[in-house]
Amino acid sequence: MFAEIITIGDEILIGQIVDTNSAWMAQQLNLIGVSVKQITSVSDDENHIIEALTSAKKRADLILITGGLGPTKDDITKKTLAKYFEMGFRRDEGALEMVRQIFQKYNRPLLDINMQQADVPDGCEVIVNKNGTAPCMWFEQSEKIFVSMPGVPFEMKYLMSDEILPRIKSRFKLPFIIHKTILTANIGESFLAQEIEVIEDSLPAHIKLAYLPKLGQVRLRLSAKGDDEKSLKTEVEMFASQIISKVNRFVVVDDDIPLEKAILNMMQARGLTLSTAESCTGGYIAHLITQHPGCSSVYWGGAVAYAYELKESILGVKENTLTTFGAVSEETVTEMAQGAIKHFKTNYAIAVSGVAGPDGGMPDKPVGTVWIAVSNKHKTIAKVFNFSNKRIQNIERSAVAALVMLLNLLKEDL
Amino acid sequence: MFAEIITIGDEILIGQIVDTNSAWMAQQLNLIGVSVKQITSVSDDENHIIEALTSAKKRADLILITGGLGPTKDDITKKTLAKYFEMGFRRDEGALEMVRQIFQKYNRPLLDINMQQADVPDGCEVIVNKNGTAPCMWFEQSEKIFVSMPGVPFEMKYLMSDEILPRIKSRFKLPFIIHKTILTANIGESFLAQEIEVIEDSLPAHIKLAYLPKLGQVRLRLSAKGDDEKSLKTEVEMFASQIISKVNRFVVVDDDIPLEKAILNMMQARGLTLSTAESCTGGYIAHLITQHPGCSSVYWGGAVAYAYELKESILGVKENTLTTFGAVSEETVTEMAQGAIKHFKTNYAIAVSGVAGPDGGMPDKPVGTVWIAVSNKHKTIAKVFNFSNKRIQNIERSAVAALVMLLNLLKEDL
Repeated sequence: MFAEIITIGDEILIGQIVDTNSAWMAQQLNLIGVSVKQITSVSDDENHIIEALTSAKKRADLILITGGLGPTKDDITKKTLAKYFEMGFRRDEGALEMVRQIFQKYNRPLLDINMQQADVPDGCEVIVNKNGTAPCMWFEQSEKIFVSMPGVPFEMKYLMSDEILPRIKSRFKLPFIIHKTILTANIGESFLAQEIEVIEDSLPAHIKLAYLPKLGQVRLRLSAKGDDEKSLKTEVEMFASQIISKVNRFVVVDDDIPLEKAILNMMQARGLTLSTAESCTGGYIAHLITQHPGCSSVYWGGAVAYAYELKESILGVKENTLTTFGAVSEETVTEMAQGAIKHFKTNYAIAVSGVAGPDGGMPDKPVGTVWIAVSNKHKTIAKVFNFSNKRIQNIERSAVAALVMLLNLLKEDL
Repeated sequence: MFAEIITIGDEILIGQIVDTNSAWMAQQLNLIGVSVKQITSVSDDENHIIEALTSAKKRADLILITGGLGPTKDDITKKTLAKYFEMGFRRDEGALEMVRQIFQKYNRPLLDINMQQADVPDGCEVIVNKNGTAPCMWFEQSEKIFVSMPGVPFEMKYLMSDEILPRIKSRFKLPFIIHKTILTANIGESFLAQEIEVIEDSLPAHIKLAYLPKLGQVRLRLSAKGDDEKSLKTEVEMFASQIISKVNRFVVVDDDIPLEKAILNMMQARGLTLSTAESCTGGYIAHLITQHPGCSSVYWGGAVAYAYELKESILGVKENTLTTFGAVSEETVTEMAQGAIKHFKTNYAIAVSGVAGPDGGMPDKPVGTVWIAVSNKHKTIAKVFNFSNKRIQNIERSAVAALVMLLNLLKEDL
């Protein structure tokens, strides 16, 4: 069974927002065995929306539409759907009640423009949206299903999880899709491909292998599709084992989790604790780690020591070290990591200090120069990296490099 | 002139990665007066790619294609383009030289699979990619331009900025598109719409107004399109002024910059400094701030105080406060903010402590309970928020709420 996702909104086409909804929806659909054929973003333009609907209907059985349901004049999805399906409008009592409740909860006067949120094309089924004022609308036409949802991520997510996905699962007999991901680090895509070429060539037609490189890591993803869940799983696990034993020294984890989560799991299993001392990454490593529930059993916290003064007062870096070698130096980053271990009382620490850019470079330390140290109680390893002149990229690459260094130290300490 | 963006890659359609390239490309195209008609994501499937190219060609003059150019077997874009344009292959010397140089730089042996990166459809023009081994390919057919680029964001960005956009600008006479964004906070979308309804109704047809709500902020975006840049600017500025004077008390800044950047600019202009003391936001506020070049003149740093011990040792929160009131309390967050001011020696500080979830809630402090304090040397304002049970969302909402509180305090202190 095929689905398509249509996201509606000028803000996507002028690039003001990144469409994160589609990736989430695609993930959820894949998990229940629905393949996404295409993701299409179109503007708030009636003709173009109708063209996109017409074209999606030819390829897919299920068309999920997000966006353009706000109360303001630039939102035209509802009107356009009514035109496409040749329907009039009715005011839906369930939807109106929900709008009333939401305004009551926030103690706000109910405006006419808000009540109009409950007006829907008269041939659709309304799925009440408990998290917002725009109702979700379910249309059926010549055995194709169209669902229109608000584009606000948390409203869409709740509607998908609680309403749309369960309905699709009970309505269709769906094939199974099994994905298996292996996260690798310290090796490039081409070398990895060369290492596992024989295994890749032996894959049957219903199993695909993809390489997903990102910032010094490569994810390998095996995807199998078929009717027998159990045998698919067995097959995928078999090929995954072959790959893992071939490139074992580069494997971080055989699961679709981020690098920092793999490290957290590893440290948690060994009862270890971690702190961070960040300068140029400015809290990004801490943020990566603290995105994950349960991280507090491993991660105690850290410092974002941007100013010299804070490097001294929080981390105990010596003034002399900073003035002699500079903030971006092996000496400073080593003292930062050791200071974190000492002051934050953790088993391991990460420290980063660099020139993130785009300004602030010096002849001997151009923009992109980043010193990273990882420490345990007995040892500190420091390395210098030369990244680019792009700030955000330097922050992200530094974070990944620091995490890979920590991973390597943890492996050494096993 | 219309462009379309086609992104190719199974990883997008199974939701393994979020397509951030398209938003960036759309932004850049808009800035030079090219409207993006549609963004389409399709899988690594020959027929579907050809269908997408055929369909895009009907609507647009310029088709930008990213992805599917890696050296591994799952990447089929190049082969598919050759088929679509009915071309054979040739090995491009310039592209091969670049591949050689890149492998030399990283001191890696050059494999046959890497040299094949220089094989291109024989009717295309090669634009050498200085940042990677996949060449950029420029095709022309019946006055339509097709450009195929790698999907790796920094390679694509450099190719767009340095090669593609300059060529398009010199080749076509493009209309001007002027955008003007006004960032508001402390008011909901519907109320804002009601406040400025008369102005919105008076807009001419070539000027559009969009509402972009996000986490307690609403961005208003005026977009004007036409041939006379100067008069467009004047018109847009006039309507922007009308809106700003109508809803002045809710306006953060009349520029398309994030909330934290507006705050940084405001503080920099007033010579003020800032520190952060984060518990449940785990460095996210620090990360938001330190994304911006030049932030170090305002932002000195801060603590990510996840563990009780660090709240005491870095921020000076009293043990008694933590044991009596708990980490998520007005008392603790107040001491955190005041501790940051005192220990980090800044004029202002933000402190956040909450239950991000999904676990860790208590009957009196359910998941989503977040205490936030903002301080200057004389005053601390603390507020409690009740967000959701979604961890990432709670982190993001807490950060925005904290920044809005800081903004309001800065406005008060004017």
